[in-house]
Amino acid sequence: MSSVVVANIGELVTFEPGRPVRLGAAVVLVDGVVQWVGDDADAPPADARVDAAGGAVIPGFVDSHSHLVFAGDRAAEFEARMAGRPYTAGGIRSTVAATRAATDDELRARLAALVAQARAQGTTTLEIKSGYGLTIADEERALRLAREVTDETTFLGAHVVPAEYADDRAAYVDLVRGPMLAACAPHARWIDVFIDSGAFTVDEARLILQAGRDAGLGLRVHAGQLAADGGVALAVELGAASVDHCTHLTDADVEALAGSDTVATLLPLVEFSTRQPYPDARRLLDAGVAVAIATDCNPGSNFSSSMPLALALAVREMGVTPLEALAAATVGGARALRRSGVGEVRVGSSGGVVVLDAPSYTWMAYRVGVPLVREVVGGVR
Amino acid sequence: MSSVVVANIGELVTFEPGRPVRLGAAVVLVDGVVQWVGDDADAPPADARVDAAGGAVIPGFVDSHSHLVFAGDRAAEFEARMAGRPYTAGGIRSTVAATRAATDDELRARLAALVAQARAQGTTTLEIKSGYGLTIADEERALRLAREVTDETTFLGAHVVPAEYADDRAAYVDLVRGPMLAACAPHARWIDVFIDSGAFTVDEARLILQAGRDAGLGLRVHAGQLAADGGVALAVELGAASVDHCTHLTDADVEALAGSDTVATLLPLVEFSTRQPYPDARRLLDAGVAVAIATDCNPGSNFSSSMPLALALAVREMGVTPLEALAAATVGGARALRRSGVGEVRVGSSGGVVVLDAPSYTWMAYRVGVPLVREVVGGVR
Repeated sequence: MSSVVVANIGELVTFEPGRPVRLGAAVVLVDGVVQWVGDDADAPPADARVDAAGGAVIPGFVDSHSHLVFAGDRAAEFEARMAGRPYTAGGIRSTVAATRAATDDELRARLAALVAQARAQGTTTLEIKSGYGLTIADEERALRLAREVTDETTFLGAHVVPAEYADDRAAYVDLVRGPMLAACAPHARWIDVFIDSGAFTVDEARLILQAGRDAGLGLRVHAGQLAADGGVALAVELGAASVDHCTHLTDADVEALAGSDTVATLLPLVEFSTRQPYPDARRLLDAGVAVAIATDCNPGSNFSSSMPLALALAVREMGVTPLEALAAATVGGARALRRSGVGEVRVGSSGGVVVLDAPSYTWMAYRVGVPLVREVVGGVR
Repeated sequence: MSSVVVANIGELVTFEPGRPVRLGAAVVLVDGVVQWVGDDADAPPADARVDAAGGAVIPGFVDSHSHLVFAGDRAAEFEARMAGRPYTAGGIRSTVAATRAATDDELRARLAALVAQARAQGTTTLEIKSGYGLTIADEERALRLAREVTDETTFLGAHVVPAEYADDRAAYVDLVRGPMLAACAPHARWIDVFIDSGAFTVDEARLILQAGRDAGLGLRVHAGQLAADGGVALAVELGAASVDHCTHLTDADVEALAGSDTVATLLPLVEFSTRQPYPDARRLLDAGVAVAIATDCNPGSNFSSSMPLALALAVREMGVTPLEALAAATVGGARALRRSGVGEVRVGSSGGVVVLDAPSYTWMAYRVGVPLVREVVGGVR
């Protein structure tokens, strides 16, 4: 057993109900798990001490949407897009080709670097999707590698229809919900489908998600990125844990979400990197919808893994307060993963804590872009 | 003498005329100054070696506009603004009160921390203004402290009219261009005036800038932040090195800038943090105006010191390419300070180099928000 006390905390964000922020606090973690939270003056001794120096401490971020198993990059596509070429889902296929050609160790090294970089920015819980393999063996491999670094693995064989099935979509859907699912389910906790005019229809998604549910997987959906496409209604109908993007929503979508256990996960870094209008987080919160913020870190539509920047964009562009944004990036992400014990700081929490080089969590927006994560303490899978 | 070779550079941005980027390069610095640039295979030996690991290396950023000598913060004002309260120049006075009350050592410690943080983000040349003292002694002190960390010090007694002169603006203008200027000029290279409806008029600015020029200082102007206010024409008329903000410009302003040696310095982090429309960099570049990008790091209108984020915002919001944005943040800043030998990588350059954890400079926009500065090498005052 190894204990550490994070002491001299000026402002501790716990997200304890009714008292989300406390001042003058300390936290003790044993083997990465929170064992004590209280006033700094009462902190018990521990094997090691981290001095927060009067700064703020927040829960580790829960990034509930990422695609980190891939090879190559699409910087040229990004640059062309910024010069005016529109974003479509089609670029995914170029990453599929590069990923299929990579060795396990190449993918593992890239993944490890990206996970370490995310943790250095405060992310301690990370969902990772497959979706750049699109064969049985390549999807199974992606999930096996992802499972080496997180329990929150998501089978996304339905990312796009691969080039070799372009003339027979139905056959690809049957592959995904049949033998590919069977091979992947042992390595996955979730199944996801990208609903988009460049990817899958609502009807195709229903077939795939139902098969995933029958195989024991939880459900997630990409919907509403570029249009109100009917995916939100499907997600609610099937009881998905989360529907992600939600940039384009009808009033009926918002109403359906508000009456459901499905979280609306917003991915503002995607809107930054595709120069699209931002989702309206205020509208969702005011309607009573549970909201999460995540990165969607991937080589195409957004290659940033910065949860602090995602928060700042939510404050600048999406009508939420700094505390609402932080909640969406922590407890909101936990809810989107149907997890307890992460995204908050209370006895038993396993998501670790993040010490900021700032007196308040509000500084992540106030000092946008400045790396303010001083140290990440604890967190276990 | 101490030499270091930065070797194994995949992509080196030099901004050498006609060949701004070269591949497969190395750079040797002696006592912080570039002594050799060439192909990696030909690199001479040196006392120390930094392995760029095939990544990109760029010139150190030239942040030609900052306000780093102050006490306190205005996070509450930021949060209120994000909740809908409009930005005005009036909040400056609260920082003035906090700064006057601080000791030299308190100001020095804050300044040192901010400079170190800027360097960690790749900024090796930094202009620093006074402007939170607004008495003879407090302005002189701010410049004396700033001069301890940079030669690019700017006297900004004309930041706002302090509360104690609210009923006699003319007396404050006379103070600034008389005894305050006399006390400050020995510690300053530049004089600057904030032209704004909440600060100084064009006529007041003319008097102050002319006095500064007579005292041997170079001229800088804040203008066009919230309205086309006539400040750009004044800056061009007086031959200022730079006119900063330039968010609101008339066609005549653009034409005047294009025919001048005055640089238009854009500060997109201010637009981010005040939720204002971004300046149109494309319009300026297409008209032949010399453009710089800087942070304007200050406790009020923007407290970010991130040049990488400023670049990414320019690409997302201001119609420029990643290379144009990087040029504005390096050689553009050097021109705005009428400096040679910084913001570029050639023999004799004293601005240091920045090793990125990325294969190309384009990744600062492609991976917005991710801290990609791996190491800053060299640079001297």
